[in-house]
Amino acid sequence: MMIPKTHPRYTSLMLREKISQAMKRGIVHETGLIAHGRGETFDYLIGERTLPVTKGAEKTAAACLIDSTHPVISINGNVAALAAKECCDLAKTVGAQLEVNLFHYDKERVLRVAKVLKENGADAIRGLHPDKKIPDLDHSRANCCSQGIYKADVVVVALEDGDRCQALKNMGKTIIAIDLNPLSRTAQTATITIVDNVVRALPRITEWTKQISPDETQKIIQDYDNEKYLREVLDYITHRLRNFEKAGMELF
Amino acid sequence: MMIPKTHPRYTSLMLREKISQAMKRGIVHETGLIAHGRGETFDYLIGERTLPVTKGAEKTAAACLIDSTHPVISINGNVAALAAKECCDLAKTVGAQLEVNLFHYDKERVLRVAKVLKENGADAIRGLHPDKKIPDLDHSRANCCSQGIYKADVVVVALEDGDRCQALKNMGKTIIAIDLNPLSRTAQTATITIVDNVVRALPRITEWTKQISPDETQKIIQDYDNEKYLREVLDYITHRLRNFEKAGMELF
Repeated sequence: MMIPKTHPRYTSLMLREKISQAMKRGIVHETGLIAHGRGETFDYLIGERTLPVTKGAEKTAAACLIDSTHPVISINGNVAALAAKECCDLAKTVGAQLEVNLFHYDKERVLRVAKVLKENGADAIRGLHPDKKIPDLDHSRANCCSQGIYKADVVVVALEDGDRCQALKNMGKTIIAIDLNPLSRTAQTATITIVDNVVRALPRITEWTKQISPDETQKIIQDYDNEKYLREVLDYITHRLRNFEKAGMELF
Repeated sequence: MMIPKTHPRYTSLMLREKISQAMKRGIVHETGLIAHGRGETFDYLIGERTLPVTKGAEKTAAACLIDSTHPVISINGNVAALAAKECCDLAKTVGAQLEVNLFHYDKERVLRVAKVLKENGADAIRGLHPDKKIPDLDHSRANCCSQGIYKADVVVVALEDGDRCQALKNMGKTIIAIDLNPLSRTAQTATITIVDNVVRALPRITEWTKQISPDETQKIIQDYDNEKYLREVLDYITHRLRNFEKAGMELF
């Protein structure tokens, strides 16, 4: 499908096209398309741009990554389809590992997702041979690598399942979640939640890791209040809905 | 996938499964899955139930259908996948025609959608041999039948594209739209908008057509204010968002 660059929702439509293509190539599960649609609505509700108030969450995420000894970025089909390069860039900048973890586990799809990461510059990829289980999580979703997510102190999850986010948090890890829905269990459970589209959020976190000096990190982390941030995002959305004519909202 | 009936979001997950299966059977286009996801979020925002304030819109839709001389229900892939039987029931009750109209036109898919309608009791189905164009609408989306949508005085559209809704309205028709997004162009353009899930809305309209007597219809239609209704829905959503902890919102 040809989408004219002048279309007011060009980026959103391009991402839709990407995820649609990725399903045809067996990278995204069909329910991943439905999940993407849910995200589209939330992205629309925040105006399809990074909210100014999100800066604090990004900066804190960057500080946590700088301070971490074993950071891992968890990759599922949708994340690989939308932001493989952005994940690889962040991994390189902070020395994080990439681990493939699918909600609907499928060995072949794991390999295809890993291939996408390789094509986008990933060196080592975890998740191909899971040898550990995340406690208190059912069946294949619990799979992880002993040298990857299992021993990570900081895990970046994007478009993540709420149960899995909770289980990782219960292991005592710092969870940085990128999730467009400020009300999701993932958003509410994570240590730091970034309510933004992955394609916008990841490069911004990478940029912050370059700008923050190691002696600033502790103060940034201490000053941050995730609950307050989520409340501010919600306030923004409700304000926008109440004034939708002024906000120029017109959807789909 | 087995979904336990006790799951708090059982119905929503069942519909997701239906739409997913329908894509595999070539009834729903893959972008229909993304559209379904957008709808899921809006359904979630209204609490996955019919809002009390929606009663007026349903009742007015029923009154318009009773008063109409040539009502048509427009059917796309998602509608057929989710509510084929509900569409057939309404069509029979009010003597409406069913016309297949796909956003991504594909002759084979038209036939598959028609087959689903037939399996659910439809007698005559329009849309197999479109011989007219809806004015001011590009390419295949403009296709319609001279004896169906083209000459209809009342058209029921569900999960409809905004451009097409606008073009039908411009032809002077009464448009009853079922759309979970109160801000969409379809919702804002239609004569009567029902902000509800099609699987809940259609049986309720059918029920109203049985309860309203023909001498009541004019008053019902005159008293109805669609703009006011949409504003009330929006108020409900923003109130719910502001009080989401009390509302017990927990998503995906």
